Amino acid sequence: MSQMNRQIRLAARPVGALKPEDWSHVSEPVAAPGEGQFAGVTRFISLDPAMRGWLDDRPSYLPPVGLGEVMRAASVVEVTESSHPGFAPGDLVVGSFGVQEQVVSDGRGALKIEPSLAPPATFLGALGMSGMTAYFGLLDVGALKEGETVVVSGAAGAVGSLVGQIAKLKGCRVIGIAGGAAKCALLTEELGFDAAIDYRTQDVRKALREHAPDGVDVYFDNVGGEILDAVLTRLAMHARVVICGAISQYNNETAVQGPSNYLTLLVRRARMEGFVVFDYAPRFKEAAREIAGWIAAGRLTVKEHVVKGSVDDFPAVLQMLFAGENTGKLVLELE
Amino acid sequence: MSQMNRQIRLAARPVGALKPEDWSHVSEPVAAPGEGQFAGVTRFISLDPAMRGWLDDRPSYLPPVGLGEVMRAASVVEVTESSHPGFAPGDLVVGSFGVQEQVVSDGRGALKIEPSLAPPATFLGALGMSGMTAYFGLLDVGALKEGETVVVSGAAGAVGSLVGQIAKLKGCRVIGIAGGAAKCALLTEELGFDAAIDYRTQDVRKALREHAPDGVDVYFDNVGGEILDAVLTRLAMHARVVICGAISQYNNETAVQGPSNYLTLLVRRARMEGFVVFDYAPRFKEAAREIAGWIAAGRLTVKEHVVKGSVDDFPAVLQMLFAGENTGKLVLELE
Repeated sequence: MSQMNRQIRLAARPVGALKPEDWSHVSEPVAAPGEGQFAGVTRFISLDPAMRGWLDDRPSYLPPVGLGEVMRAASVVEVTESSHPGFAPGDLVVGSFGVQEQVVSDGRGALKIEPSLAPPATFLGALGMSGMTAYFGLLDVGALKEGETVVVSGAAGAVGSLVGQIAKLKGCRVIGIAGGAAKCALLTEELGFDAAIDYRTQDVRKALREHAPDGVDVYFDNVGGEILDAVLTRLAMHARVVICGAISQYNNETAVQGPSNYLTLLVRRARMEGFVVFDYAPRFKEAAREIAGWIAAGRLTVKEHVVKGSVDDFPAVLQMLFAGENTGKLVLELE
Repeated sequence: MSQMNRQIRLAARPVGALKPEDWSHVSEPVAAPGEGQFAGVTRFISLDPAMRGWLDDRPSYLPPVGLGEVMRAASVVEVTESSHPGFAPGDLVVGSFGVQEQVVSDGRGALKIEPSLAPPATFLGALGMSGMTAYFGLLDVGALKEGETVVVSGAAGAVGSLVGQIAKLKGCRVIGIAGGAAKCALLTEELGFDAAIDYRTQDVRKALREHAPDGVDVYFDNVGGEILDAVLTRLAMHARVVICGAISQYNNETAVQGPSNYLTLLVRRARMEGFVVFDYAPRFKEAAREIAGWIAAGRLTVKEHVVKGSVDDFPAVLQMLFAGENTGKLVLELE
C-alpha cells in the first residue's frame, strides 16, 4: 500500500506556551487492519484544554503523551475497511484515535455514532466528552439544586456553554464569565444566560456583587487564576466549587497561582472538588440520552467552532484555545 | 461596689503580627448582676488561633471584635452571686465571657460544667470547642473511614492532638506534622501517632512519601501555606482536605498564600472543604459524651498548656500560639 498516514507527534516536552518545535509532522505508510480490526479515515479531531496537561511529564489522571508518540486526541473516524464484527465500512466511530489521518483500531474504546441524532462533530462536543464533563460536573460534583445561582467561567467554551444552559434547564440563575463583548452577547442573547461578565473589561468581583447579590451556590471553574479568586469572595453558604480545569494556568512557566481566597471555604462552609469525567463512563449513555433530548427539543443550543484543514494545522488550531479565540467546541475538520 | 474589673480591650486593628499597642488594659467598676443574671470571676481563659481572624474588619463567620470592645474569648467562670435560676454560687460555667476578670451574664450561651468529669480547663479544650472542632471536622467533614491514612498539621496543638488520637481510635493510620523534635516525640511516644514529621527540619513532601506511600485519605489542615501545598501533592484518590484553619497565614500583611497545588484535587478526584464548629452545636453533647468516655477510659490523652497569670498577660500568651510555643490546649489560668 503506497498511501501515507500523516501524523502529529510530540517532539519535545513544552515549557510554558506551546511552540511549533514541540511537534513533529511525520508521514508513515498506512498499516493494513489485522484480524478483528478496522481501518478508517479521520474526519473530525477534538481540541481540548486538557491536552496541555497531557504533554507534561508528571503524574495525572492519564499517563503523559510520550515523546515521539502520536498526539492523543478524540476524533470521529469513518470506517473504510473492517474485519471487526461491530464496525462496517461507512460507519462513523468516535474514540481516542490521535492526531492522524488514518486509523487502525481493534475497536477498544471506540463507539459507533448514530448520525441521525446529530452532526458527527457534536459527538466530540455536546454528545461527547464536553457534554459529559458539563453534565456530571454540574449535576453530580456540583450537586446543583433548582433555584440556585450558578457561575461558570470559560462560559463561551465547549464545556462552559453547556454548563450554563444545563443549569438554566434545571431552573437556576446563571452568570457566565467570558472574554470579550461578542462572547458575552452570545451568552445572554443566544444561550439564555441571565448575565455575562467580560473579564477583560470588567471587575469580576464587583460585577458578581451586582449579578449574584445573594452569593454563588455553584461555581464551575474552567480557568483558575484570578477569576477563581474573585468568585471565591462571593460564595454563598454551603457553596460548591467544581474544579474542572484551569486554562489560565496551563502554560505557566512558574508555579500555578493558588487561590489566595480559599479560606472563604471555611467562612462559607463551602467545598472545592475536582473530578475526571472518565469516572462517569458507566453513566455516559444516560447523560447523552438527556442531552440529545434537549437538543432535539430545541432547548439546548450547540455551539461548535469548526476549523477546516489538515492534521498539519493541529498545532496552530490548538493555540486558539489558549488565546480564547474559539466560541463553543473547537474541532478540526479534515478536508 | 468599689471592686474593679480588669479587662483587655481591642485598641487598634492589627496589621500583620499582633503588637502590644493593639490592646488596651482597662479597669472599670464591677457591675452588679440584675434580675435573672449571675456574676462570677474568671478562672480560665481559652486562647485560640481563630482569635486572630476575629480582629480583622472583614466578613467572617462571626462579626469582628469592635474597636474598644472587650476581647472575645471563651472562659470558665466561677459563679459568685446569682438571681438566675440555672446557676448558683460555686458553679463553674463555660461561655464566651471575654478577656476580663469579672463577668455578669444573663446565662445566654453559658453552660454549667460537671467538675467530676474533668478539670475545668478541659472544658475549654478536649470537652470544649477544640474537642468539638477535632471531632466534627474529622468525622463529619473529613468523613473518616476505618483503615484510612490521616495527616494532621498543627498536630501538637489543641485541635491537632485530638484529631490524631481520634483518628487512631477509629482505626486509622495517623501522621502528625509539627514544629520541633519535642513535639514530634510527644506525638509518637505519648499520643500514639504512627509517625511525626518535623516541618522545621524535614522535607514534608519527601517524608510523606515515606510515611504515607499509598497517599493521604484525609488531611486535617490547621496551618495552610507550604505545608498544605506539600500534602496536596500526596493525596490519595477521593481524598478529603478539611480546612480548619491556616495559622501560618493569619499574620500575613500580604495576601494569603493560596494552595498552588490545588489542581491535584482534580487529578485525585478529591475535595477541600471548610467548616465552622458552631454549626454542630445541636450535636455537641453527643460528641462530648464520646470524648469524655475516651478520657475516662484512658484512651485519649488530654494535653493542656496552662499559663498562670493575670488578664494583663493575655496579649503575650496569645503570641505563643503564633510562635508555636504551646503544646496542646493553651489556657491562661487567672491567679
